[in-house]
Amino acid sequence: MRTFDLATGTDQFVKDIRVVRWEQYELGKQMPFQAMWYSVPPGSESPLDQHPELELSVVVAGTAHVVSGDDEHAVPQGSAFLLNSTETHIVQNRSAQDMLTIFSAYWMPTGDSDD
Amino acid sequence: MRTFDLATGTDQFVKDIRVVRWEQYELGKQMPFQAMWYSVPPGSESPLDQHPELELSVVVAGTAHVVSGDDEHAVPQGSAFLLNSTETHIVQNRSAQDMLTIFSAYWMPTGDSDD
Repeated sequence: MRTFDLATGTDQFVKDIRVVRWEQYELGKQMPFQAMWYSVPPGSESPLDQHPELELSVVVAGTAHVVSGDDEHAVPQGSAFLLNSTETHIVQNRSAQDMLTIFSAYWMPTGDSDD
Repeated sequence: MRTFDLATGTDQFVKDIRVVRWEQYELGKQMPFQAMWYSVPPGSESPLDQHPELELSVVVAGTAHVVSGDDEHAVPQGSAFLLNSTETHIVQNRSAQDMLTIFSAYWMPTGDSDD
């Protein structure tokens, strides 16, 4: 068993957002996806992002407000959202006091778009 | 974007453990892994489990005490643990009042055991 600690992971900051990338754990091809955590402070939001990878995000603290074009969803702690390849997204933390933290797994599409 | 709600997902119970399997979302091959949530009530634990799939578990509420043979780790909310193929495991919730909830992704090993 191997454990991965959110609090002590080596991080970098994108604006005021703490990002902990899992490349540091050198898991190689053990996992069929890449992963990271990111934490959005109260009242802040992630930069507009868009990438070819699909991205499954699990909210591990706080509530995410996810904006993708005209589409917007509130995703509470424990719940998750899946972004399609090239789907634009901004992740907002509208709380005045609680940190929002997300675990994201991401991978390139397989080409099996219909299933 | 698609969202997955832990609270309203169709569930089943294994002993007193609530399990929400992601097969219900019919994601087909969009994700390179299978997934589920499970919730362990205060003072309870999961049955001893062992399976060929590797399993990455992210703690979305509470603290997990994970026992694998003589190996034992406390994994707090937000942090994660990775179980190897065929590694036995029991997940305990030692809290007297807080629910433990875990998001797990699992997949068959690729055969690239050295990376």
